[in-house]
Amino acid sequence: MTLLTQEHELARRTAREFAEKYVEPVARKMDRENYYPREVIREAGKLGLLTPTVSPEYGGGGGDLRTAVVVLEELGRVSGGFSLLVEAYGILFADALNNFATKRQKEEVLSKVAAGEKIGAFALSEPCCGSDAAAIQTQAEKRGGEWVINGTKMWITNGLYADYYLVAARTGPREARHRAITLFLLPRSKCIEASPIEVMGVRGTGTAELKLSDCRAGDDDVVGKVNGGWEVLTTTLNIGRTAVAAVAVGVARGAYEEALSWARNRELFGRRLVEFQNTQFELAEMLAAIETARTLTYYSAYLYDTKSPHFVLMTHVAKLQSARIAVDVARRAVQIEGGFGYSKESKAEMFYRDAKILEIGEGTNEVMKYVIYKLIEKGSFH
Amino acid sequence: MTLLTQEHELARRTAREFAEKYVEPVARKMDRENYYPREVIREAGKLGLLTPTVSPEYGGGGGDLRTAVVVLEELGRVSGGFSLLVEAYGILFADALNNFATKRQKEEVLSKVAAGEKIGAFALSEPCCGSDAAAIQTQAEKRGGEWVINGTKMWITNGLYADYYLVAARTGPREARHRAITLFLLPRSKCIEASPIEVMGVRGTGTAELKLSDCRAGDDDVVGKVNGGWEVLTTTLNIGRTAVAAVAVGVARGAYEEALSWARNRELFGRRLVEFQNTQFELAEMLAAIETARTLTYYSAYLYDTKSPHFVLMTHVAKLQSARIAVDVARRAVQIEGGFGYSKESKAEMFYRDAKILEIGEGTNEVMKYVIYKLIEKGSFH
Amino acid sequence: MTLLTQEHELARRTAREFAEKYVEPVARKMDRENYYPREVIREAGKLGLLTPTVSPEYGGGGGDLRTAVVVLEELGRVSGGFSLLVEAYGILFADALNNFATKRQKEEVLSKVAAGEKIGAFALSEPCCGSDAAAIQTQAEKRGGEWVINGTKMWITNGLYADYYLVAARTGPREARHRAITLFLLPRSKCIEASPIEVMGVRGTGTAELKLSDCRAGDDDVVGKVNGGWEVLTTTLNIGRTAVAAVAVGVARGAYEEALSWARNRELFGRRLVEFQNTQFELAEMLAAIETARTLTYYSAYLYDTKSPHFVLMTHVAKLQSARIAVDVARRAVQIEGGFGYSKESKAEMFYRDAKILEIGEGTNEVMKYVIYKLIEKGSFH
Amino acid sequence: MTLLTQEHELARRTAREFAEKYVEPVARKMDRENYYPREVIREAGKLGLLTPTVSPEYGGGGGDLRTAVVVLEELGRVSGGFSLLVEAYGILFADALNNFATKRQKEEVLSKVAAGEKIGAFALSEPCCGSDAAAIQTQAEKRGGEWVINGTKMWITNGLYADYYLVAARTGPREARHRAITLFLLPRSKCIEASPIEVMGVRGTGTAELKLSDCRAGDDDVVGKVNGGWEVLTTTLNIGRTAVAAVAVGVARGAYEEALSWARNRELFGRRLVEFQNTQFELAEMLAAIETARTLTYYSAYLYDTKSPHFVLMTHVAKLQSARIAVDVARRAVQIEGGFGYSKESKAEMFYRDAKILEIGEGTNEVMKYVIYKLIEKGSFH
Repeated sequence: MTLLTQEHELARRTAREFAEKYVEPVARKMDRENYYPREVIREAGKLGLLTPTVSPEYGGGGGDLRTAVVVLEELGRVSGGFSLLVEAYGILFADALNNFATKRQKEEVLSKVAAGEKIGAFALSEPCCGSDAAAIQTQAEKRGGEWVINGTKMWITNGLYADYYLVAARTGPREARHRAITLFLLPRSKCIEASPIEVMGVRGTGTAELKLSDCRAGDDDVVGKVNGGWEVLTTTLNIGRTAVAAVAVGVARGAYEEALSWARNRELFGRRLVEFQNTQFELAEMLAAIETARTLTYYSAYLYDTKSPHFVLMTHVAKLQSARIAVDVARRAVQIEGGFGYSKESKAEMFYRDAKILEIGEGTNEVMKYVIYKLIEKGSFH
Repeated sequence: MTLLTQEHELARRTAREFAEKYVEPVARKMDRENYYPREVIREAGKLGLLTPTVSPEYGGGGGDLRTAVVVLEELGRVSGGFSLLVEAYGILFADALNNFATKRQKEEVLSKVAAGEKIGAFALSEPCCGSDAAAIQTQAEKRGGEWVINGTKMWITNGLYADYYLVAARTGPREARHRAITLFLLPRSKCIEASPIEVMGVRGTGTAELKLSDCRAGDDDVVGKVNGGWEVLTTTLNIGRTAVAAVAVGVARGAYEEALSWARNRELFGRRLVEFQNTQFELAEMLAAIETARTLTYYSAYLYDTKSPHFVLMTHVAKLQSARIAVDVARRAVQIEGGFGYSKESKAEMFYRDAKILEIGEGTNEVMKYVIYKLIEKGSFH
Repeated sequence: MTLLTQEHELARRTAREFAEKYVEPVARKMDRENYYPREVIREAGKLGLLTPTVSPEYGGGGGDLRTAVVVLEELGRVSGGFSLLVEAYGILFADALNNFATKRQKEEVLSKVAAGEKIGAFALSEPCCGSDAAAIQTQAEKRGGEWVINGTKMWITNGLYADYYLVAARTGPREARHRAITLFLLPRSKCIEASPIEVMGVRGTGTAELKLSDCRAGDDDVVGKVNGGWEVLTTTLNIGRTAVAAVAVGVARGAYEEALSWARNRELFGRRLVEFQNTQFELAEMLAAIETARTLTYYSAYLYDTKSPHFVLMTHVAKLQSARIAVDVARRAVQIEGGFGYSKESKAEMFYRDAKILEIGEGTNEVMKYVIYKLIEKGSFH
Repeated sequence: MTLLTQEHELARRTAREFAEKYVEPVARKMDRENYYPREVIREAGKLGLLTPTVSPEYGGGGGDLRTAVVVLEELGRVSGGFSLLVEAYGILFADALNNFATKRQKEEVLSKVAAGEKIGAFALSEPCCGSDAAAIQTQAEKRGGEWVINGTKMWITNGLYADYYLVAARTGPREARHRAITLFLLPRSKCIEASPIEVMGVRGTGTAELKLSDCRAGDDDVVGKVNGGWEVLTTTLNIGRTAVAAVAVGVARGAYEEALSWARNRELFGRRLVEFQNTQFELAEMLAAIETARTLTYYSAYLYDTKSPHFVLMTHVAKLQSARIAVDVARRAVQIEGGFGYSKESKAEMFYRDAKILEIGEGTNEVMKYVIYKLIEKGSFH
């Protein structure tokens, strides 16, 4: 894959070895027991895999977006949950800090998070408005010299266990929508009550609902500018979409690889399953789809790394297509494996459940299409 | 729906009331704890809902296949698992006995099973050969005047808790394939070791792997004729396919109804979700798909009830299309509900997992296409 | 197919013989030369095939909607164009008159049209508003005792050659939308200028744009009531949707049958094409789709014939699904036939072009979804 | 699009200007009258657009595969037929010569073909075996010092008007399959009888059936080695698949652009069509699909240009996905345009017919899947 350099392939190797050595053994436990793999996170931190794009100065991997992409892909191949956990951790939280935080914030918080010593969570979604970020209702009011923050956050990955939260709050009237949003970096504290959300897949990611009650923050806890949160959010979410596409590629590959292996060993009507033309064509469809998702994802990351303005379109295309491909490939994988694929002994079963979140989280398919249309409206793509 | 008579609508009402009163309260427990709803089964037996097609003489509902179809649909709308449990119970086991068992077998076994006092399970699939029933390896050998049966059965719904098993076994060489298969009615006993299989959805159905070690049976335990098992199997599976299609219709409806209700109440961008054209068209697609599945399923049952030779084709068409529709509609339902749909608080989440088995169980999509092609090969359809 | 009676099967036989004897020989000529088969129309009239649902009193076939459906299916199997021509002729024009015209109108016009001596065309669509019938702009003004009609009609099947036009016109302000529409029965005359529209498929149907300049009509030329046109239109279009679904079934079958025959004879890699599993599964998918479309279509017609209120939903479901199935099956047929399927020597090539109109004409897929959603809004479908 | 360099963008600009100035005016005439645009070909030759990858020494454009890809895309956006004509001309014929011909062959033939003075056609397919190239039956026998060639070729683009043919012939027994195939460069002569094939789309490309009767050739007319034709064919077809994918991208864009423009101007229910969410999402889907096809196509070409072994997989993936995308996008475009899209006044109508060949020509979708599976069989894709 020559959109990638030798360095990316090195990062891939590291990630793959890590995934097989550390993640694979806990993948089922995460899924079945909603087990949050605190120790594996720490190990990942040691290798810079938690925050591939964060500056080495703060303990990150110092890579570009393609580095993050190959890491997430390799993790996703083994566990959709672990990959998504790292995505929310290393991109939504850490890369946002890397891009927008003050030196002090980076020194105090980012370095510990990159090392895996402290956990960071990105807290944007709310019960009111998953797809309409500009409508969030969590309010930050200035009282005395302090910000006082109240509200509820939903679907916060790592939220149950986080030591730091990057919280988007309204710092003006609702009508101002995206022009009155500010990001705050808050430490874990009693003012934040986290309760678990039970989900279908990507389990063990510490997904939580957060209730913020009179959380206090100073001006130096603002990340980016006051009322400048939208820039942080769009920058971060745009990057995040390519990163989620990479999780999708990993999940699709994990499902495909198991199905291929199953089809090679399974006998039916006196022949190996893989000898049937239908199976061969299904596998070819799956690989074609995966290579499509990969190409879109690597290319989108490449555009970001080379500062191309085409990135904004392609990150939405990559997310939309890759998420759908992950769901479709996982469905085909379960189908190839038949009863086994439906049983908890198969990985395909887990990937099938994992994959569905990718059409929803960090922007639904509908949001992707909405944004793509907005880009069509603005100009033309020739 | 005028393929159905007033009597069918009466059966539907009974089934719906039963589903809401008895099944709904245990649906989540079945799913989460793999809880086998023994008491609810007993209640269903009292109303004749367990075995809608079995003769009233033996305690069955005395209905036709359309009766069974509306019952399964209503149950599936509330719980895919409970509906599939009843399908395996009332069609695969009980309807097979009703059609092929001796008077003694019916009196001794079927009447108790119809009443829900004793549980019956249909044991055909094996680890070797889910899709190739003619290749089963469970062997019944005549030793002295007795049959001695050894082998392993897989994916046996109700298998963990059954009091009676209808077991397909080989009574001749493997090469004879479908010409040397016989069905035996065996009581629960130490010779049958049942172990649970953990599955993605339709949980709480007591799905088991069975190991048969030197199980003994007499000639009067044969259902149908010696080496005549294939007729029992094809008759029963053909009926079962329409019945599974009905489960699919129910599952699709359950998912659709929740999504519709969600869309009516959820706000987004200052409007109710249902006011967006995309949501409206999605809901219309879902209803169109459900009505398609229903029409195929009711029509297939109608063809059976009127002894039309067209039934064999249509039962495969109905199963193939309805199973796919259930998976697709559940996927759309989860998507409409977004994060909520992915959480364990929604029903869509459960239906999404339940639905996938319908493309696999009792004949995969691939088996449906195989059979349809065989019918094409034989003749023409004008 | 037991939704149909012996009489329907008789009608089918008549239609099939007619199609093979009279339509097949002109199908290509219609397609290539835009040839309007005036003589074949006359022959069809003799057999009552032009107006299957019109009362025998006026020379029609006297059948129910299922009769029309099987006739259109058999015609469509040979020529999508001829079938659609008959649909517009026999349903949109003639069945509308049969249901709403005065005795005099029926005696003077309908009887000649049913006999195929005079041609009738239904003129609703306008350049402004194909999908928004309530917005039509053709204006009928009362001047003296006369109506004076001006406006432009588009996509009028048989419009080039019609002797009579059933014209929808506005008889009130635009704001009144559907409450101010009236239907007029106009003879061919100089006030109507018809010009041909060149289309991709269903060629040879005399599709025209009509310019009406000061056409004059009396009160006794009104069909239905003044300002009561909407009832005529919705009744007729609802019936028409099932009828178009029948055309779709025919087109799909025509394409499927040629592809099956091709696959049986074509050799590839030393085997007949039909021996490849992929081809077998493709054919099975096609037949499953066709049987789905048929079942929906026959069932919808059956609901109309039995005056079921469920008809309104099902006619839209049948049209939506059958049109899509026709396009999909034709695409698969061309694909099976490869280069031959793309050449003008194949019928698949023609059916591929014919099929696409079925997703557009007499209500686009989008209009179907719109109406289905409106029905969802109104009530629930259990 | 940064997989492309400034030079590629320059080539694109040239191609686009040429397409709009020269191709656009004849596009409909090609389609309606099967008009072969001899003059436009000559003009293209002047600009090096006919043979973008041929060495400038012989009058070609001297570009890489990405250059060819952007040229074909821009041509396809205006006329699928003209683009495919140039693809068969510049890649299948000319690039094959550029890669495998002797110096003399290049000087005598390639230079004239590159200039557009003489027409070249690539003659591989036969009636027997479109998808099974190794089974061709055209026979070249050595008699005296000469090769004598007999056989029939099918679907030969430019075949009606070619001055030179690159003919694949069997130079050994059929059982030797691909090991006994040789390519010959033959001038137009009486021994080659060309007759036109009428096709659904990509019309005006001079597609022909060729009958070769005792055509004579010397050893110096062999291109590549005797019995070494398979290498020429696989190299050329692999390149050709990416090139056809580029035609598909162009066709999809042409259809999309017209539909977008239509939706911006068309009014429906009192709003512009583009204001409906359904239209917006359709357009977004279309653009996402087009960007997917483009990315795959550019990336595949880039892999070829950088001699990556990953090219073989990706050229098949790009062809498979892009062809399907072209058909799907054209279908959506026609749908958005409604009746207009079905009329011969729209471009969408032409693109809809043009697109279908892309799933068939130069390797069907099925052949793509076959090859992809063969690559899966050989190794693994990480």
